[in-house]
Amino acid sequence: MQWTKVLGLGLGAAALLGLGIILGHFAIPKKANSPAPQDLDLEILETVMEQLDAHRIRENLRELSREPHLASSPRDEDLVQLLLQRWKDPESGLDSAEASTYEVLLSFPSQEQPNVVDIVGPTGGIIHSCHRTEENVTGEQGGPDVVQPYAAYAPSGTPQGLLVYANRGAEEDFKELQTQGIKLEGTIALTRYGGVGRGAKAVNAAKHGIAGVLVYTDPADINDGLSSPDETFPNSWYLPPSGVERGSYYEYFGDPLTPYLPAVPSSFRVDLANVSGFPPIPTQPIGFQDARDLLCQVNVSVYNRLELRNSSNVLGIIRGAVEPDRYVLYGNHRDSWVHGAVDPSSGTAILLELSRVLGTLLKKGTWRPRRSIVFASWGAEEFGLIGSTEFTEEFFNKLQERTVAYINVDISVFANATLRVQGTPPVQSVVFSATKEIRSPGPGDLSIYDNWIRYFNRSSPVYGLVPSLGSLGAGSDYAPFIHFLGISSMDIAYTYDRSKTSARIYPTYHTAFDTFDYVDKFLDPGFSSHQAVARTAGSVILRLSDSFFLPLKVSDYSETLRSFLQAAQQDLGALLEQHSISLGPLVTAVEKFEAEAAALGQRISTLQKGSPDPLQVRMLNDQLMLLERTFLNPRAFPEERYYSHVLWAPRTGSVVTFPGLSNACSRARDTASGSEAWAEVQRQLSIVVTALESAAATLRPVADL
Amino acid sequence: MQWTKVLGLGLGAAALLGLGIILGHFAIPKKANSPAPQDLDLEILETVMEQLDAHRIRENLRELSREPHLASSPRDEDLVQLLLQRWKDPESGLDSAEASTYEVLLSFPSQEQPNVVDIVGPTGGIIHSCHRTEENVTGEQGGPDVVQPYAAYAPSGTPQGLLVYANRGAEEDFKELQTQGIKLEGTIALTRYGGVGRGAKAVNAAKHGIAGVLVYTDPADINDGLSSPDETFPNSWYLPPSGVERGSYYEYFGDPLTPYLPAVPSSFRVDLANVSGFPPIPTQPIGFQDARDLLCQVNVSVYNRLELRNSSNVLGIIRGAVEPDRYVLYGNHRDSWVHGAVDPSSGTAILLELSRVLGTLLKKGTWRPRRSIVFASWGAEEFGLIGSTEFTEEFFNKLQERTVAYINVDISVFANATLRVQGTPPVQSVVFSATKEIRSPGPGDLSIYDNWIRYFNRSSPVYGLVPSLGSLGAGSDYAPFIHFLGISSMDIAYTYDRSKTSARIYPTYHTAFDTFDYVDKFLDPGFSSHQAVARTAGSVILRLSDSFFLPLKVSDYSETLRSFLQAAQQDLGALLEQHSISLGPLVTAVEKFEAEAAALGQRISTLQKGSPDPLQVRMLNDQLMLLERTFLNPRAFPEERYYSHVLWAPRTGSVVTFPGLSNACSRARDTASGSEAWAEVQRQLSIVVTALESAAATLRPVADL
Repeated sequence: MQWTKVLGLGLGAAALLGLGIILGHFAIPKKANSPAPQDLDLEILETVMEQLDAHRIRENLRELSREPHLASSPRDEDLVQLLLQRWKDPESGLDSAEASTYEVLLSFPSQEQPNVVDIVGPTGGIIHSCHRTEENVTGEQGGPDVVQPYAAYAPSGTPQGLLVYANRGAEEDFKELQTQGIKLEGTIALTRYGGVGRGAKAVNAAKHGIAGVLVYTDPADINDGLSSPDETFPNSWYLPPSGVERGSYYEYFGDPLTPYLPAVPSSFRVDLANVSGFPPIPTQPIGFQDARDLLCQVNVSVYNRLELRNSSNVLGIIRGAVEPDRYVLYGNHRDSWVHGAVDPSSGTAILLELSRVLGTLLKKGTWRPRRSIVFASWGAEEFGLIGSTEFTEEFFNKLQERTVAYINVDISVFANATLRVQGTPPVQSVVFSATKEIRSPGPGDLSIYDNWIRYFNRSSPVYGLVPSLGSLGAGSDYAPFIHFLGISSMDIAYTYDRSKTSARIYPTYHTAFDTFDYVDKFLDPGFSSHQAVARTAGSVILRLSDSFFLPLKVSDYSETLRSFLQAAQQDLGALLEQHSISLGPLVTAVEKFEAEAAALGQRISTLQKGSPDPLQVRMLNDQLMLLERTFLNPRAFPEERYYSHVLWAPRTGSVVTFPGLSNACSRARDTASGSEAWAEVQRQLSIVVTALESAAATLRPVADL
Repeated sequence: MQWTKVLGLGLGAAALLGLGIILGHFAIPKKANSPAPQDLDLEILETVMEQLDAHRIRENLRELSREPHLASSPRDEDLVQLLLQRWKDPESGLDSAEASTYEVLLSFPSQEQPNVVDIVGPTGGIIHSCHRTEENVTGEQGGPDVVQPYAAYAPSGTPQGLLVYANRGAEEDFKELQTQGIKLEGTIALTRYGGVGRGAKAVNAAKHGIAGVLVYTDPADINDGLSSPDETFPNSWYLPPSGVERGSYYEYFGDPLTPYLPAVPSSFRVDLANVSGFPPIPTQPIGFQDARDLLCQVNVSVYNRLELRNSSNVLGIIRGAVEPDRYVLYGNHRDSWVHGAVDPSSGTAILLELSRVLGTLLKKGTWRPRRSIVFASWGAEEFGLIGSTEFTEEFFNKLQERTVAYINVDISVFANATLRVQGTPPVQSVVFSATKEIRSPGPGDLSIYDNWIRYFNRSSPVYGLVPSLGSLGAGSDYAPFIHFLGISSMDIAYTYDRSKTSARIYPTYHTAFDTFDYVDKFLDPGFSSHQAVARTAGSVILRLSDSFFLPLKVSDYSETLRSFLQAAQQDLGALLEQHSISLGPLVTAVEKFEAEAAALGQRISTLQKGSPDPLQVRMLNDQLMLLERTFLNPRAFPEERYYSHVLWAPRTGSVVTFPGLSNACSRARDTASGSEAWAEVQRQLSIVVTALESAAATLRPVADL
């Protein structure tokens, strides 16, 4: 047929043809091309928010915390099966799920020979024996599955000596005792939790020849000073006198025998004699009831044993429809010290509810995310983030290349007052977007965001008053993701009104009183804070997995860099100048970063106004996703195991600036120019300048040199 | 309008509507989607092959080698300008080009006080003085720009002592002398080039208390035994008696003062006293004319100086049309020891011709590659791959994330006989595809491939008889790309018929006789071998930059792994078993890699038969591109600077297997079970198992756990 003839048929026919063309163009997807850009669907988001059910979270928690589930215990393994069953459910499960098991070195008290702390009289007789278990107040503190309070990885030994009160066991506490003329050699140090890490107390003590360490929970630190049985659980949320905080006293994280290697059976294991990071002397935690009674001569008998155990992670995945090789990773650990209703089951209960709601939409065919979503239940976190660390060691490359962000919800609810988020700067905007759209629990009509800003806020030079995010230490499973792999990470929880309590952490933390009733009655009756965290996390997951443009705002790093730079200039500038070290290159690098991040933001805005093709957006998203990796330098801090992120490595120096610079300056301060310590300052300065220049270079248009 | 009414208009209208739908669907590209997949265009390829011009390469070489252009010399800087001018040419230039300059530590002889080697008689008088310069045979060996022969980075000093002939200066050579009862303390060692690295001769000598080292070029090693002036250049390609090989005696690569940092002015520089890797004792190269005359007591005066110099890289880019963030990187160094017609200008002449041909197609609007092509002219390679290494240090992240492959053509023509390629296994197939389609120079009708297989071949269990690729050491600028960044790399050249010469390398290597006429008369009259290398490299570049599916065949790694495994089993298996170390996990890991690589190959084949969308192919290509990165482990060999590739790190052990395993076994062999050396064997075994498992994991379908 010739076109002239078709045209002869007149206007009606032309209109029909036109309609056909329009239909053909818009209504039928082209096969050879990629699916039409799929963006965040606000209806789906709304559905997910509605379906996240406080009652179901409560039921999850009841089941999860019904029995103690210490890492690698039979009940821990039962929960692995529970997770697998849920994630393989035909109606609300994921695409696939499996458990993966590592053989790791854990530490346990001996069942036959419990750890003992006795007070010994002048004639050698036992005057008082500390409690070996917590008081069975609710019927859940007894029985063989409640592990005796102990300091995991503390060595065995039976030291005896005079008791010396050493405050928090910080280096300055022992120095203070020394200046008071108190003899420390051969004594037992009584310290209280807080201030420095658990293991650090024993490390510091041993330097002074101390023979053993006791660590107790002070009512002033945990109970707002209250200590009598009628003022504590089960009559309030406060810790009973017999409560003892368990915990890992290992200095690093990951399996102690397989640093940088996955703890699979075939991996090389360091000889036990060469393991570093364990407490050097016997150490035992006790309750404040016993701490009060301690006098004079104390006998500490620790019979902890190291055991190789199998510990499992459970992983479940929802395959991405368009970019299956981009992972939004969401995780929490599963193991607890005892029942662990708060730590970690409050997080796991949310994990299960989130996977149920998303799994149901998936199985109904209503929705499939643009990118893959990976759910993880980590094993043996309490012993030192072991399951998550081994996972990152095993899959280092693919995780580093493909992970968009890691979201951690460990303890989901510390208390009912406000949201609290720790994270790297690029995640701030997605958390803000999510929380502005979700109603805060409790009376009134505030959004989570508006409530949050009342408790934690800061004045941003860019945005004005905004909620403030905390930075990520190594307190939970996000640590290997941010520090070892350089993946943008966050940790989300609901927490305290600090004007109402000064408790160091929720009072029954790591004790046998951290039970379902504790949560149900005191921490979050009605579970509305749990629901709020579930909604926040759910919204963040959807935004990260479904948005066409990744909602990671890299220019928000500029504020951090600027504040680190200002601190360096104000608090270190003069000192550095005295030693002829210029901050000029650092200023230039920060300015370059700011300019490139802003320019990239402009290019994204422009592109968003048009109709960019998926490959173009993928390239931009890769720049956003991989920015965080440019801050990694595995050779920056060779003595700090796993820590490679030059902005978030541990800071021991007092100046709140780039940690390598802060630490090196603090060590060099009292040495002469030209010392090795000053050379290290210069090296650290070059490392951070190079990282910032490299980061700016990755943000430039990709075909610019 | 209701559908029922439209249907009432009858069949003709329906047909029109249908036609419209068809037109709308097929004839109008959907705006929101990406451009149609762009694949390798065979016509363009043919055009490029035809336009690569031997005559122009010759003219390039004439210009490039007209004057000596030692790194950082004025003439070296002139060549920077020449490259910039060519790459910015409006008719045959690239999209953009720029020079980037580093401040690096180089080493030069003193102009005022030349290095001296004298033979001293029994009474202290000078019996013979070695030549301070090469004989001015062609008029190009004289003048101030011809640097005096010297050992770069050898320390100054004026040792005097008895001369001891120490063969190649290997550790076993000195041991042999010791067993012969020859006193080495305080002597001058005369060694010949070859066998071990330049710097290693001085390192080994110093261990025996030797005071100075001379290194000469033996006619047996370089001239097939010929040594008289009428048998050597300018009468043949052989080295004249006065010729002296210059070279860097630095043990590592990169700027010695800024390991792991770019040598920008602001970077921290190691204190000179703490630099490692320089020869420990004065060292000087000499010609065989002088070597023949050396007797008894020798006085060596070395006055080398270290200087901080600016050295430039020149970078030019052709922006990719579809995936500008994927880089095909092609480079060669620019600096020479003297005129450097062969080393490196034979490569640079090709670089310029390739960029001219591609630039012309670009400027005409005929062609733009799918991916970006980056051309690089490196500075100060001769001093230790300095320009390329600093570049990788400065842009570590973006290069590692985005580079598809690195192609190096340094010396492009050693001789006229055959192609020679060194590279990692994934590049084999693209080189084969390219060379099968290009006619070999010389008489006959063979392809480069068919000619190549006559000289270098092996029997592949998969393919039968194929040309064999060599593996990549650290002989040129590919080293930082493969060893430090884990980028698939290759080095391409034309080379000898080994049945015709046993020359260690082309005879005038690093001497003042490496001139244009030398190439024009002896090495490649007519420049057809240069053209063959240009065509090979050009075809490889186009295939890597334009093919829809990346032509990197990752399954070709399986053969290498299998052969390493077999060597480990055959040559180390019994020894390992004696020490209760099992190769089982390694067997499993290799099998897993083989299976996953084969399965990925299958998925690619299937996809190629359909019409996959660009995002799908991009995801697959990322798996192919990033495979090589999974073999990197920056913590595997902490004592080997930059070397992180667990398959290609330097191997000192004799068993041709995984280098970490081979080296560790060779060190542990004579120690007892349970020694630290055996623990290191186990650690190295775990490192390679983890790398192979990780590699296999990245090849799996991306949404599999």
